[in-house]
Amino acid sequence: MSFVVYINGLVMVFFAALMEVDAAFFPETAEVFGLAGFLAGTVGVLLSIAASTASRDLRRLHTFVLTASIWLVAAIVGAVPLWLWQLAPVDALFEAMSGITTTGSTVMSGLDDTPRGVILWRAILQAVGGVGFIVTGIALLPILRVGGMQLFRTESSDKGDKELRNAAVFASATLQVYLCLMGVCALVYVAGGMGPFDAITHAMTTLSTGGYSGYDASFGHFQSPFLQWAATLFMLLGALPFAWYIRGIYRRRFRSEQVEAMLVTLAVVIGGLTLWLVLTRHEAPLTALRMVAFNVVSVVTTTGFATTDYTLWGPFAAMAFFILTAVGGCTGSTAGGAKAMRWLLIARAVWHQLRMIQSPHRVAVIRYEGQAVEDDVMAGVISFFSIYMATFMTLVGVLALFGLDLATAMSGALTALANVGPGVGDIIGPAGNFAALSDPVKLVLVLGMYLGRLEMLTVFVFLTPAFWRELTA
Amino acid sequence: MSFVVYINGLVMVFFAALMEVDAAFFPETAEVFGLAGFLAGTVGVLLSIAASTASRDLRRLHTFVLTASIWLVAAIVGAVPLWLWQLAPVDALFEAMSGITTTGSTVMSGLDDTPRGVILWRAILQAVGGVGFIVTGIALLPILRVGGMQLFRTESSDKGDKELRNAAVFASATLQVYLCLMGVCALVYVAGGMGPFDAITHAMTTLSTGGYSGYDASFGHFQSPFLQWAATLFMLLGALPFAWYIRGIYRRRFRSEQVEAMLVTLAVVIGGLTLWLVLTRHEAPLTALRMVAFNVVSVVTTTGFATTDYTLWGPFAAMAFFILTAVGGCTGSTAGGAKAMRWLLIARAVWHQLRMIQSPHRVAVIRYEGQAVEDDVMAGVISFFSIYMATFMTLVGVLALFGLDLATAMSGALTALANVGPGVGDIIGPAGNFAALSDPVKLVLVLGMYLGRLEMLTVFVFLTPAFWRELTA
Ligand SMILES: [K+]
Ligand SMILES: [K+]
Repeated sequence: MSFVVYINGLVMVFFAALMEVDAAFFPETAEVFGLAGFLAGTVGVLLSIAASTASRDLRRLHTFVLTASIWLVAAIVGAVPLWLWQLAPVDALFEAMSGITTTGSTVMSGLDDTPRGVILWRAILQAVGGVGFIVTGIALLPILRVGGMQLFRTESSDKGDKELRNAAVFASATLQVYLCLMGVCALVYVAGGMGPFDAITHAMTTLSTGGYSGYDASFGHFQSPFLQWAATLFMLLGALPFAWYIRGIYRRRFRSEQVEAMLVTLAVVIGGLTLWLVLTRHEAPLTALRMVAFNVVSVVTTTGFATTDYTLWGPFAAMAFFILTAVGGCTGSTAGGAKAMRWLLIARAVWHQLRMIQSPHRVAVIRYEGQAVEDDVMAGVISFFSIYMATFMTLVGVLALFGLDLATAMSGALTALANVGPGVGDIIGPAGNFAALSDPVKLVLVLGMYLGRLEMLTVFVFLTPAFWRELTA
Repeated sequence: MSFVVYINGLVMVFFAALMEVDAAFFPETAEVFGLAGFLAGTVGVLLSIAASTASRDLRRLHTFVLTASIWLVAAIVGAVPLWLWQLAPVDALFEAMSGITTTGSTVMSGLDDTPRGVILWRAILQAVGGVGFIVTGIALLPILRVGGMQLFRTESSDKGDKELRNAAVFASATLQVYLCLMGVCALVYVAGGMGPFDAITHAMTTLSTGGYSGYDASFGHFQSPFLQWAATLFMLLGALPFAWYIRGIYRRRFRSEQVEAMLVTLAVVIGGLTLWLVLTRHEAPLTALRMVAFNVVSVVTTTGFATTDYTLWGPFAAMAFFILTAVGGCTGSTAGGAKAMRWLLIARAVWHQLRMIQSPHRVAVIRYEGQAVEDDVMAGVISFFSIYMATFMTLVGVLALFGLDLATAMSGALTALANVGPGVGDIIGPAGNFAALSDPVKLVLVLGMYLGRLEMLTVFVFLTPAFWRELTA
């Protein structure tokens, strides 16, 4: 267990270093970030020294504790400078959890006049959270067998250490691809007319599918069609599986069923909504296409940028965006949601079932990427959806208990769980803000973002008595 | 295939006979029901004579066609007298489908002044639909292996004819239990002060968990606490598995995991909501308990009677009732919804998964009633939930496309699919009425009720190309 403490100490030191970088660049908030960095660094160093002699042999259950604790520690440490700056404790935690989980819901308004050091910190949280989630998705969740992610286990043995070594190689390649895409995105944004600071921070929140912006109008602040199309492209790139990039670069293999499924879905939805917008609201086709493509890609990739308040397009659009919130990007990307892979497997399971009830004695299997999908993968996917629904309903119930209306409760719970950001409705819609909600509601949403990011099962394992028996054994 | 036509002909003759009974008792609408009965009877006799020489050897696929067609024919035939009376065609179809599927949503208002012959016909549709669904659930769905219902296959061989013979025995016992409970219910209602007509029609719509009433105020018309508690009890009895009654009578075996799960769930929900109502709205505890017990049991058993507009209890209550709409009663009862058995299996699958991801190499199985649940049953249950969600979302999308607001669209789609009846919100809530909706919306809801009653998979089988290849082969 003390190895878990050791790693968390290192995480704190890492965040401390980032705070000092922020302090170095922005004098206005240098004191805040300098002090926060000093505090986080001191605690981090003490913890890792105290636990440095720990055995590095992670027991399986410790991997759960490690994963769950890192994300919690990161959110709390990330909240410190925001709290020292001027946010109330609950607001600071909300903003930091929303950042590190790349959700992007905000309780802050007046962003245009907020010190740039704070804006940078929000972008840093999302950039770090984004790559952290890719690594979690590629390296940890498959080992933990959470939600069918064992489908992506490397061919290596079941031994934890070998997988972790493979994971280190993967993580390094991932980081390179991620930083590279982020750099290109920033350059394209500059080419489109953004200033360097805006370009860098928005590139960080685009590729991480985080969606924090330095402006109250979100990406709508930039009225350039070029920039909007560029953001559409890079949001999409952030929601593709990073293992697919790496495989593409090293092995020139680009077929991927979940990438294809996501692209086809996007094309159909964007086409349909554009047509609907042109027919019912008489928009110019190209403008409609740009608006729809940006906002649909933003929601499906779980980025949550907005260029316009699409909920004003009427109940059908509001419904469509509500449903799209649940879709999510690809596994092993920065995106949240249920993920294209799982929808694909569920759809195939249903089709399989329709064939089976017609001809009960036929022999057939469900395939993914040409391979038969094993039963435990399907069981994981199904448990994921079941727990997703149960968590969603529980959150909605609790939010309603705190007085939220049905639509806001449902949309708030879903946008938190799927790490999307904006919801539907007046309060938390793309033109709204989470500031008006009460503290208990904010804390419920913080829990929702955390559960969503860890794909729920990672956390709910702690609720079984057997876990505690084995942990203390 | 012509055996399917033959059976449907007999169904029409059966409904014709019921219409003539209605005509015999109520002179005011005797012409309408007499004519409708003559038409239905003539067509029915002609069809069954034309197809009477058909082979009775049902191929597997024909069982699907038979099941799907009977329910559609029954709704259309049931609509004829309502249409001849005064309803518009779409309204008549809505009312009849809502009756035969025991949904109980109504487009009629001014029920208090509606001819009693029409009120009786609505009750007859629900009484017939209720027992029809029990038989479908006990005899047909297990053979069709729809939604995991093969769990309830009798031990006999896979041969269709033997199962059908068992089914006939079961159907006869079921009908006796059903009529017996209905009779007792009517007597209790009379003892509580109802007139004979009200007692009989409300007993028919209570035991069938249908929920049609002869009054606009629904069961709230009867302000007697005794009657409300009596209805609470008999709604519950209608939502228990009829195979469980029969087993209890013949073998004195009363343990049933899904019955226990439903009762525990009801106790917890009723207790919690009562407490909440007492604390937040300062109701007298016993009044609160009666109101909550009646309305919760009404929604969970998918009856849909209302004694009060519970949506006025605030957003938390609205949310709670919205979620309860999805729960449903037990398999093999008259109730709709997802059914207690399926929730239980899903909950166990999730728990199983939480144990498995902790200790991947442990050997364990999911059990139901002491037996290991086979993989194809779990696959059926999962497909059921997946298709349920997909159908729900599609219906919501289509309803939103026709201009319904999000809450009404969601609640309308769910209450139709789960065959509950009332929704949440001003328009279709317990104090509202479906009359204000446009014709296309009504037709979408008719489709929803039909799909919900047939547990979706039975109908969606028709969407696979393989079905048509085999059917025409
Ligand atoms: K986001
Ligand atoms: K009903």
